[in-house]
Amino acid sequence: MSSHFLHDFLSPKSIAIYGANNTFGTTMGTMLLIRIINSNFKGKIFPIHLKLDTVLGYKAYKTIAEVPEVPDLVIIVLPPKVVPQVFKECGEKGVKKIVLISGGFRELIEDRSNTLTDEIIDISNSYGMRFTGPNCLGVYNSWIYPEDNGRLNTMMWREQSKRSKFSMASQSGTLASQLWLDAEYPDFSVGKVISVGNEANIDLVDFLEYFKDDEETDVIGLYIEEIKRGKQFLQLAKEVTLKKPIVAIYGGGSQAGNRAIKSHTGSIAGNIKIFDAMIKETGIIKIDYIEEFLDICSMLLTPNFPYPKGKRIGIITFAGGPGALIANNAERKGLIVPEFSESLQSKLKSMLPHTASWSNPIDITFDMNIFNLYINFPKILMKSGEIDIIIIYGAMGFQSMISLEQKNNRVSKHIELREDMRDRIDDMDKLVITPTIKNSQKYSVPVIYINPQSYANPWSKKIREHGGIVFQFWDRPVNCLAKICDYAEYRRNIKLKK
Amino acid sequence: MSSHFLHDFLSPKSIAIYGANNTFGTTMGTMLLIRIINSNFKGKIFPIHLKLDTVLGYKAYKTIAEVPEVPDLVIIVLPPKVVPQVFKECGEKGVKKIVLISGGFRELIEDRSNTLTDEIIDISNSYGMRFTGPNCLGVYNSWIYPEDNGRLNTMMWREQSKRSKFSMASQSGTLASQLWLDAEYPDFSVGKVISVGNEANIDLVDFLEYFKDDEETDVIGLYIEEIKRGKQFLQLAKEVTLKKPIVAIYGGGSQAGNRAIKSHTGSIAGNIKIFDAMIKETGIIKIDYIEEFLDICSMLLTPNFPYPKGKRIGIITFAGGPGALIANNAERKGLIVPEFSESLQSKLKSMLPHTASWSNPIDITFDMNIFNLYINFPKILMKSGEIDIIIIYGAMGFQSMISLEQKNNRVSKHIELREDMRDRIDDMDKLVITPTIKNSQKYSVPVIYINPQSYANPWSKKIREHGGIVFQFWDRPVNCLAKICDYAEYRRNIKLKK
Repeated sequence: MSSHFLHDFLSPKSIAIYGANNTFGTTMGTMLLIRIINSNFKGKIFPIHLKLDTVLGYKAYKTIAEVPEVPDLVIIVLPPKVVPQVFKECGEKGVKKIVLISGGFRELIEDRSNTLTDEIIDISNSYGMRFTGPNCLGVYNSWIYPEDNGRLNTMMWREQSKRSKFSMASQSGTLASQLWLDAEYPDFSVGKVISVGNEANIDLVDFLEYFKDDEETDVIGLYIEEIKRGKQFLQLAKEVTLKKPIVAIYGGGSQAGNRAIKSHTGSIAGNIKIFDAMIKETGIIKIDYIEEFLDICSMLLTPNFPYPKGKRIGIITFAGGPGALIANNAERKGLIVPEFSESLQSKLKSMLPHTASWSNPIDITFDMNIFNLYINFPKILMKSGEIDIIIIYGAMGFQSMISLEQKNNRVSKHIELREDMRDRIDDMDKLVITPTIKNSQKYSVPVIYINPQSYANPWSKKIREHGGIVFQFWDRPVNCLAKICDYAEYRRNIKLKK
Repeated sequence: MSSHFLHDFLSPKSIAIYGANNTFGTTMGTMLLIRIINSNFKGKIFPIHLKLDTVLGYKAYKTIAEVPEVPDLVIIVLPPKVVPQVFKECGEKGVKKIVLISGGFRELIEDRSNTLTDEIIDISNSYGMRFTGPNCLGVYNSWIYPEDNGRLNTMMWREQSKRSKFSMASQSGTLASQLWLDAEYPDFSVGKVISVGNEANIDLVDFLEYFKDDEETDVIGLYIEEIKRGKQFLQLAKEVTLKKPIVAIYGGGSQAGNRAIKSHTGSIAGNIKIFDAMIKETGIIKIDYIEEFLDICSMLLTPNFPYPKGKRIGIITFAGGPGALIANNAERKGLIVPEFSESLQSKLKSMLPHTASWSNPIDITFDMNIFNLYINFPKILMKSGEIDIIIIYGAMGFQSMISLEQKNNRVSKHIELREDMRDRIDDMDKLVITPTIKNSQKYSVPVIYINPQSYANPWSKKIREHGGIVFQFWDRPVNCLAKICDYAEYRRNIKLKK
């Protein structure tokens, strides 16, 4: 994607920055430059400062004209009124790409005459420059050096240890940067994030275009307050969703939401119904809740995620209550929990204790046969063709169950541990998870594990490392699956039409 | 509450147990006894076993008749067919309270003739015995020794370090016991939990009666699949909800949910609409999602939780996107996000940078004045009388922000830290949280803090220790508040009528 004009925004080799100094906690510009340095950006850095000789250890320049080369990217964190002059100086220097962090352009002009914005648009056009913002937070790119873990980071507060093929464009910079502050949840780190701000020059359509063919992007996230080029956006989204899922969360719609947006980006936000109708035909997965946004992206990022072929869900549980609640929520969300055929039921019945249940949900009760829970029952259900999705309640860590035994001396000296359990405990994940993940991909049936021990429990992490999907509780994954089923259906229908 | 017949179930001084042996991982009975021992139960334990001389270090008895005293409580984990005989022997011994763990009584009888259940009911009546179950997991009582941290635990897999005044009765034992496996979420430990099983003898009405006047119970949780004595339940619930909130989650309703329930407790579950209509008049807070159940209980357990006086929510945020999304969801859930009066707006405007917003949401943008965010703006809103609830987005830990500075040598040697920040950092929680919590109680306006760093972040924990309410993201607390507002309104209306 190095030919796309956005390439230099995400992968510049040199950056000049206006607005950073040496005092922590006072200016945005300083915080931003600290992040760039800490992220192991390997390119050149040229701070521009009228008075200082050095900024955070880098030689500072009084003006961009003094910088010994033309930087690939210029970042501006200055009061709005000086920005037109700085834009001109950048243009004269030959700069082509600018990230305009500063806010206070459009938001303040109550009659929306936008003179300051118009001015910088004109300047940038006259010099052939492109810019993101105003009122944005810049970029995050964990793929800037594909071979190692250097980053370009202007916005993330927390270091991202991993990277994924999740790319996001957001009309709220803080939203995009503050969803990833927790090292445990969600269990994926973003790949590329762009804070698009007020979109005076570069907008969502540009970024969709870029992400569409980007090999480091598998799943696209959008936070939308306003769509500027509606027709182009819808057309492009339709093309993208055939190849890659777009997950979008919309900030507009309510009275107060629209009020917030007007002061935030200056946009005129619309009616939620119009928005919904507009994107319904695009295949975009539209989300109302922020955790659902993260959950669904996390699911879709699962390696070789198997899209469900229909909406029939098979439930395997060792507890009646969660089984009933999963079934309730599945039906509430438009999924189907079919009663199994007689032949399937009698097969399951023969493998279960007589207190169990086998009609769907399969409730194994206190049967300790984990090979049935983890491998055999999922496989039987997949092979039956009677379900499209499997949810397994009770994927708990063996280690922590066994460690009970060692905990209390009063008990442990009296206990014998079954040898077959002790021998297998360390390799349990390979024994019970891997075969089911393989089957899941073979039959294209997503399998969701629920481990109430916690989202970040070591056993849950192991399952995720093997390519499984694990949640702490059962409602959120079911909500996600319902939306993913709709998307899968949309894709099937489009393909049928062609 | 020692006079109530349920007292001995929760606070026995001696327990006899059928069905435990010395091999880990094979029988429920053994796991159950391990838990009792590990929980620091201080009473006597009498295992009953036909062959073993000792069980987990305790002298075992061949029959209950040989036990040297009449135990306060007998726990039975045996195959159903031997249970009637054991019941008789217990009756002969003079036992009055039994926890019948074993399943397989009612669930199996397809024509619902229930002969085995009828038999044990008859036996228990003839000896004046009461029993919970069959098909239950027993009890958990963290208040058995009010002065210290001994417990009675037959069901919880994870040790609960703290205890709260949350009591739960659940028709799913595993549900009740497996909601608390994560040490971090929810940030409260249960007080008392009773797994009621099939309710052949003791039912939800009994437990509500007990919890109603129990001083160690402030919030009551119920998992319901079926209500046996409907009329009494509704009448009693109406009385209880005037004093203490009841939060209920219902497993029935859907086709598959009802199927699951039939095989789970053998109940005939009903239609969700009938259930909803039935409990609507009781003031019960009815919940569909398991995390919402935990969230709402957690909120209500906040010390001196201030019930909101209305549905108007004031939003304070340092990020536009979250502000808009909070507003959207609040309106979607029936809360009101009013535009502030002109006089309030001009007051706020005078304290904010010109790029900020002050109409509701208040978007402070990049203003670093945390005293406004944490103290001044909440107080101004409370005093204004224009809102009933406050939600603050961006309650992030200072320590981790400041520690950025120390992280990278390349940066830190060049940075000066503002002295006022460095001096205050350790006492920040007392400085900024305590005054607002006090105001929150004074004005009866709940304040919800959102810290995207994570639910279990040290700063979030500190806020909770001061009596604050903190979530990682913003949708779930808003959903909870909407339900709590309905409950508060219900209580106000009832009081008005009186």
